[in-house]
Amino acid sequence: MLVKSVLAAAGALLAQQDPEASNAVGYSWNTEWFSAWVDNFNSWGPTSGSTYQQRYLINDTFWGGGPDDCIAFYTGNEGDITLFAANTGLVWEVAQEQNCLVVFAEHRYYGASLPFGADSYDNDNLGFLSSEQALADYSNLLGSLKGNLSIPDAPVIAFGGSYGGMLAAWFRMKYPGVVAGSIAASAPVLQFTGLTDPTVYNGIVTRTFGKTNPNAPPAIFSSWGVMTDLANTQDGRDFVREYLGICDTLAVPTDVTNTVFNWLNNAIGYAAMADYNVPANFLGPMPAYPVTVMTQGFSGPNVTPDILLSQLRAIPQVFYNYTGQAGSCFNLSALMPPGLTGDGWNVQSCMEMVMPVGQYGWPTDMFYAQPWSLAQDIAGCVQSFNTTPRPYMTQTIYSSDKLAAASNIVFSNGDLDPWSGGGILKNITGNPSIIAITVKGGAHHSDLRPSDPSDFPSLIEVRSVEKAAIRRWIAEHNAATKAAGVKAEL
Amino acid sequence: MLVKSVLAAAGALLAQQDPEASNAVGYSWNTEWFSAWVDNFNSWGPTSGSTYQQRYLINDTFWGGGPDDCIAFYTGNEGDITLFAANTGLVWEVAQEQNCLVVFAEHRYYGASLPFGADSYDNDNLGFLSSEQALADYSNLLGSLKGNLSIPDAPVIAFGGSYGGMLAAWFRMKYPGVVAGSIAASAPVLQFTGLTDPTVYNGIVTRTFGKTNPNAPPAIFSSWGVMTDLANTQDGRDFVREYLGICDTLAVPTDVTNTVFNWLNNAIGYAAMADYNVPANFLGPMPAYPVTVMTQGFSGPNVTPDILLSQLRAIPQVFYNYTGQAGSCFNLSALMPPGLTGDGWNVQSCMEMVMPVGQYGWPTDMFYAQPWSLAQDIAGCVQSFNTTPRPYMTQTIYSSDKLAAASNIVFSNGDLDPWSGGGILKNITGNPSIIAITVKGGAHHSDLRPSDPSDFPSLIEVRSVEKAAIRRWIAEHNAATKAAGVKAEL
Repeated sequence: MLVKSVLAAAGALLAQQDPEASNAVGYSWNTEWFSAWVDNFNSWGPTSGSTYQQRYLINDTFWGGGPDDCIAFYTGNEGDITLFAANTGLVWEVAQEQNCLVVFAEHRYYGASLPFGADSYDNDNLGFLSSEQALADYSNLLGSLKGNLSIPDAPVIAFGGSYGGMLAAWFRMKYPGVVAGSIAASAPVLQFTGLTDPTVYNGIVTRTFGKTNPNAPPAIFSSWGVMTDLANTQDGRDFVREYLGICDTLAVPTDVTNTVFNWLNNAIGYAAMADYNVPANFLGPMPAYPVTVMTQGFSGPNVTPDILLSQLRAIPQVFYNYTGQAGSCFNLSALMPPGLTGDGWNVQSCMEMVMPVGQYGWPTDMFYAQPWSLAQDIAGCVQSFNTTPRPYMTQTIYSSDKLAAASNIVFSNGDLDPWSGGGILKNITGNPSIIAITVKGGAHHSDLRPSDPSDFPSLIEVRSVEKAAIRRWIAEHNAATKAAGVKAEL
Repeated sequence: MLVKSVLAAAGALLAQQDPEASNAVGYSWNTEWFSAWVDNFNSWGPTSGSTYQQRYLINDTFWGGGPDDCIAFYTGNEGDITLFAANTGLVWEVAQEQNCLVVFAEHRYYGASLPFGADSYDNDNLGFLSSEQALADYSNLLGSLKGNLSIPDAPVIAFGGSYGGMLAAWFRMKYPGVVAGSIAASAPVLQFTGLTDPTVYNGIVTRTFGKTNPNAPPAIFSSWGVMTDLANTQDGRDFVREYLGICDTLAVPTDVTNTVFNWLNNAIGYAAMADYNVPANFLGPMPAYPVTVMTQGFSGPNVTPDILLSQLRAIPQVFYNYTGQAGSCFNLSALMPPGLTGDGWNVQSCMEMVMPVGQYGWPTDMFYAQPWSLAQDIAGCVQSFNTTPRPYMTQTIYSSDKLAAASNIVFSNGDLDPWSGGGILKNITGNPSIIAITVKGGAHHSDLRPSDPSDFPSLIEVRSVEKAAIRRWIAEHNAATKAAGVKAEL
């Protein structure tokens, strides 16, 4: 399923960038290791005391060192933590402003934090790869850090984007005694079975692709039909190959309707997520506003196939060949760069991360029909991993749609980002401490990126709201801590 | 360790009563079963879908049936759920007043809710006996019930006493989207390593024993020394045996300093917990205010051994022989009635429920010295079960001492109850939705008992505060539900 690799890629959006090249500030850190429980929820028996070495990155450059000074804590998601640390500008900017200790904690089963070492991805060892375990890890780690540094009451601000944003939100929701407040950027906490319709995600992709050129979505929708027709003959397939600039021979119809379609779909989906105001390196380099560049040439659906496919070629060109990295033609077998196999996320998708995303055709979206099916999702997990997902698990544990009693979370979403459809987009009546805010013109967690001269008003405003919330959370936390504790004199 | 069986007994305080005899109202219910996950936190692999049949009791006599009508939900603790249902008056009284559906959910591994059937207590099968699993069970069960009854937004009020009170509090803290508010009666959520000093528990027992007769604690303290001296000779041991009315021959010194001391200690500890205003059936029948009856005869420490031991005899007399059930003399081997072996609680004590309770002698308490030691506790668990407890586990998961962001919990405690020392006894500055309230003259979760004509003002007042809080929680929950949800139109 595309959706699985897409969310993995959402993390990889940051992760694929070169840490050294990604920013001028030169963020740096010490690498430390924490003895985390392999199983936070089962402490019984002779082997249940097993621990693993969890990696975290720490920087005290800005830290005030006092008991009231904050900890800016990134709730690591599905990727190597060093790459999140190198690219999550907001954490560093807040740390500098608020004198925070910076901690980036790596999510178990990713990067160097492997509960069973090289055997971590053996099918028998995967049962502890869950958001619940990750959050308990983070609580343990923070308890230990605060103890070691003698700052038991230091305010902790959690940050995260995408799945990391879900973790940041859930961390505050489930561990409000540990986390004073959370920035949950582009966190699709409602992108689960029964909460968000499977039509939503690609509806937003379609909207994003129409934003600067309304001709693009109907043209793109039309192209699937045109290519499906062409796929029936060798001449037609050669035509597709020639106009899209593909190296590979397209020998049978499904080489078009399966391979080429997926290849185009990837480019479209990732570009919608990464439609940033700055050039970014997302599975390869892309220009600023890649969707605009991809779509500007479309003149609508009522053109001849040669014109339509010539216009369509801008999509792979921008995504796969912006700096000429593809060479003289596109090699379809290089669909996904090595290193982004999404193994961990595929596992999580077959446990609790069951996310309804489908394609339904015009006018719901601009794609060929490929409806989402829970039964199919489950069957795929049984086949791939011999496991059956629990589609309602996150809802049982987190109740992400019931936020009346939650507090101190900013849910930010970019309105271009297809994941925003599963996000918290509305304030909660009567609960001003949950802030739902939209980056108008923003993509997938744009606000976590380092500030840039090209930042536009809504992005600047959202970061400013986030920083103000953080200041308030820290002040309130410290005031509450100074008030008497819960223990009574007897 | 005494503490383990004591908390088990705290649950058993209710559980040992005859359901039929315990109240005049005639509470009744249907028994239902829910397919609960054996492991709520690990959904991976071919066997992780295993379920067990969890028992719950349901009564819709008072239920309004509307979408806004409440569910009065008892978070079952360490015992057979039918006995909690028969004895927890407050749940039924609130249900009648507020038109609630009544649900008593049985805690896994107790009563008839056995995850591995008859093999549940095999050492290999005990890893899923935890508060975290129990709460996830309750969330799952409520989700299913609400779905089946088409009342997705019904307000749920959780109730519990003792460990069940901890569960009720933690349920609201960790699942605020599931539970609108909780009555946590005599919930020692701070009775954990590092949070409450091991001197506290027996300090309160001592205070309770001095409340109507200040001569009693110094006399009781003195008696241990007197008996230790007497234990050195057979004449002395016979003297102890005669004056306390014991059947068994006391052949060696430890028959006194170990066996007799434990036997007296049990009687003292349970009486302090169960010092109710009404006669109650706690490991056998006791009169109203058993501590008063036990202590009224003491004239102080400076009396001859025969007088001291004659006065001391009131303690076993009240606890073990109030209705003459002991026969003509006390049989020490019948220290604990069958059926209260505390197996499940002993298991939980060797996982996350590590509770510091020790004896330190005068003036800290009125007992002979038997200090608490974490190392000894751990060694005992390794020896008994080949497992090592996690003393800081509840703190990692629940942060029970950090309630600034918690809401809608009443923590009630009886000031006679030794468990109150590990309770939340103070309101939280700036957080009026956490109510810490004391039943002055109350014992272990007196407020959960059915209302009685002999109820004293503070007990009546506490129940009234609880009912008012519940009314407010229901109203606020329903108002918030009527406000727009979190999903936005896209």
